[in-house]
Amino acid sequence: MSEPLRYLLNDDEVPTAWYNLVADLPAPPPPALHPGTLQPAGPDDFAPLFPMELIMQEVTTDRYVDIPGEVMDVYRLWRATPLHRARRLEAALGTPARIYYKYEGTSPAGSHKPNTAVPQAYYNAAAGVRKLTTETGAGQWGTALAFACQMFGLECEVWQVRASYDQKPYRRAMMQAFGAEVHPSPSDATEYGRSLLAADPDNPGSLGIAISEAVEVAAQDPEIRYALGSVLNHVLMHQTIIGEEALLQMAKAGDTPDLIIGCTGGGSNFAGLSFPFLREKLAGNMAPVVRAVEPAACPSLTRGVYAYDFGDTAGTTPLMKMHTLGHDFIPDPIHAGGLRYHGMSPLISHVYELGLIEAEAINQTDCFAAGVQFARTEGIVPAPEPTHALAATIAEALACRETGEEKVILTALCGHGMLDMAAYDRYFEGEMVDYDYPVEQVEAALSRIPQVPA
Amino acid sequence: MSEPLRYLLNDDEVPTAWYNLVADLPAPPPPALHPGTLQPAGPDDFAPLFPMELIMQEVTTDRYVDIPGEVMDVYRLWRATPLHRARRLEAALGTPARIYYKYEGTSPAGSHKPNTAVPQAYYNAAAGVRKLTTETGAGQWGTALAFACQMFGLECEVWQVRASYDQKPYRRAMMQAFGAEVHPSPSDATEYGRSLLAADPDNPGSLGIAISEAVEVAAQDPEIRYALGSVLNHVLMHQTIIGEEALLQMAKAGDTPDLIIGCTGGGSNFAGLSFPFLREKLAGNMAPVVRAVEPAACPSLTRGVYAYDFGDTAGTTPLMKMHTLGHDFIPDPIHAGGLRYHGMSPLISHVYELGLIEAEAINQTDCFAAGVQFARTEGIVPAPEPTHALAATIAEALACRETGEEKVILTALCGHGMLDMAAYDRYFEGEMVDYDYPVEQVEAALSRIPQVPA
Repeated sequence: MSEPLRYLLNDDEVPTAWYNLVADLPAPPPPALHPGTLQPAGPDDFAPLFPMELIMQEVTTDRYVDIPGEVMDVYRLWRATPLHRARRLEAALGTPARIYYKYEGTSPAGSHKPNTAVPQAYYNAAAGVRKLTTETGAGQWGTALAFACQMFGLECEVWQVRASYDQKPYRRAMMQAFGAEVHPSPSDATEYGRSLLAADPDNPGSLGIAISEAVEVAAQDPEIRYALGSVLNHVLMHQTIIGEEALLQMAKAGDTPDLIIGCTGGGSNFAGLSFPFLREKLAGNMAPVVRAVEPAACPSLTRGVYAYDFGDTAGTTPLMKMHTLGHDFIPDPIHAGGLRYHGMSPLISHVYELGLIEAEAINQTDCFAAGVQFARTEGIVPAPEPTHALAATIAEALACRETGEEKVILTALCGHGMLDMAAYDRYFEGEMVDYDYPVEQVEAALSRIPQVPA
Repeated sequence: MSEPLRYLLNDDEVPTAWYNLVADLPAPPPPALHPGTLQPAGPDDFAPLFPMELIMQEVTTDRYVDIPGEVMDVYRLWRATPLHRARRLEAALGTPARIYYKYEGTSPAGSHKPNTAVPQAYYNAAAGVRKLTTETGAGQWGTALAFACQMFGLECEVWQVRASYDQKPYRRAMMQAFGAEVHPSPSDATEYGRSLLAADPDNPGSLGIAISEAVEVAAQDPEIRYALGSVLNHVLMHQTIIGEEALLQMAKAGDTPDLIIGCTGGGSNFAGLSFPFLREKLAGNMAPVVRAVEPAACPSLTRGVYAYDFGDTAGTTPLMKMHTLGHDFIPDPIHAGGLRYHGMSPLISHVYELGLIEAEAINQTDCFAAGVQFARTEGIVPAPEPTHALAATIAEALACRETGEEKVILTALCGHGMLDMAAYDRYFEGEMVDYDYPVEQVEAALSRIPQVPA
């Protein structure tokens, strides 16, 4: 076994532009709508929350956007990330498939999130913003933004879902190590938070509540802006650095993917790896099947409706056309906190409607079984989120063992699980449960999405 | 700032031999002694615990030992590790010094420990051993050995100091993710453990107790052997892959170190980085000052005596001549659990006596302050152990700001702190304390070391 296990890139090989899939789609994605007028939302509707550079990236139809040198200088702290060939996993599975994984866990936050946190902090700093606010669940996004703000001299204030704040002190300490101020949400630092605490001092919080608090603070002060870690077009575009690197690395490996698999919550990691390959597919240069894997407890693509809905639970954002389970649907507490989002990125939803990608949903115990098998062969303990992609990858590889097909599978290992070991602990103790798909709760939530005339 | 931030090596540049400093020293280190006869210990004295290949590496005077291909094939999962230039830290300090750090946190265990765990597992598997036993404190070494055993089909049984077992479930879960069986120590799985529990069911354990349990199990079954994560010659030699890579990477950077700084507990990380540079120093090719930094609470080099002593608390190992605070000295509970060892590697102790290296001791709150400054500039949260080296590095760099000296400093960042965030939490909460050097406890412990005629 002396074949390469990793494919790296030299500094001068790292791509210097993000890719915008919108430029190559056969039809443009539906626009966001102002929730009051139901007319297409313009830049001014986003201006209280985001700097103009990011708003223009949100709506651009340019194929590429150059990565600023200041952003590259931070990316180069950990980029390019390695592309691994999973030879030991292949051997353990006895499969003729060739499995590659693009590993984002070598970043400062341990996940792909800094890929967008860094440019968001940069553009805000360039616009004279003093502080960024955001929400976080388990803490991956909050950690990434805290780090990014530190790189550009910005303050960072994070609202973390109280249940996670109390149960996962390690992630909170990481955010503090990177200089952020962290509140449990609901907090007494906002009007909305105080109203919730007055009604229920023990409110455990939710991502939607935390978003509302972070947005409330940002909207009140022109020196403060808000940052979102997934869902939006500009966030997905920043993540395409993953796929652009992987294209170069797969070429070094001398292989072309037949199947690309990524997990989806809001969709940024999946888009980051797959969109540059979709460009090549649309151009006829390769023909990979591209598959999104979501948790069975929160299956927005496979079970949700494609409709205009709010991005947050309180219903304060512009309306976005996306696959949704209803903006006030609260997913069961699976351990892949990063996948517990009621909707799917509008751009990914659109690509799914166009038939360019497929989707499946998997239960978390199957995902953790895959994660443990991966750890014991490849030496990396995956975060709960990418175990969804690994479970699908292993199933495909085992199918290849039956058929003899030498399928080339590329998957997105978007982060390590070192700060998620409590979830593994529950798995080993036999205390991890799967959740039935909550048909009634979703139907109820869907009955409350806004009615938008076709 | 478009200069390189990281220096990588291609697969074909990774060194394929470990370096044995003993071959180049002006005098050989004193031999280990049999504790009963006080005669030099021979291979047979170690045979119940280690396979013959490792015993021969322990005593060899060969300059290089080839790394087996099977070991290289595991190393290549993460090696070469990156050498970073700390440009952002330099800028924050306003120093003309050039700071480099060799980062071992990208390994499966998040530290340098797999560098020796992997060959130890390999040689044991080759000798027909079925299971390895070991002790672990915070869990870094246990995690590394669990991973390594998985790579070669060995079982792994770990005794973890009970206080850590209870307080740090994440590391325990990491070991389980890598397939190990983990006991809290003292345990009811050994005679020694049961005797301690009978006397005190709440015994919090110590590294010395855990060693005794792991050794007891290994000594009773020819299919079971024991593995040690530091201190011994062969362990230090396995770690020299760090320094061999760093030599090549410093050459790529076009710099030669004036000062090399590493933290020391048992000494394996420090030796791993510095020994290949000491070879170059002894050959007259460079002239770096080489400095070991130890915790003020456990200062074996700067405050201990140089004498024959036991490696474990129970007094069952061969006697080794080393800097020691007494084999039954129990260090205060500083957060750098990996540096809480009563002695120093005999080979490092010998090198210190020869005047080839220097040493200093630093308090943990100063170390954590350095760790936070490092995290906020370089984006990596360091483990508590290497914050000792970082504190000394930052102090040197600040001195250079005064003198204007463009000193080239190379330091060993032997692991990340993602599983040590509880310690950072205490630091941020202002609850971290420093400990006075325990003069009386050390004097008492030193009064109990064995009397060996000169």
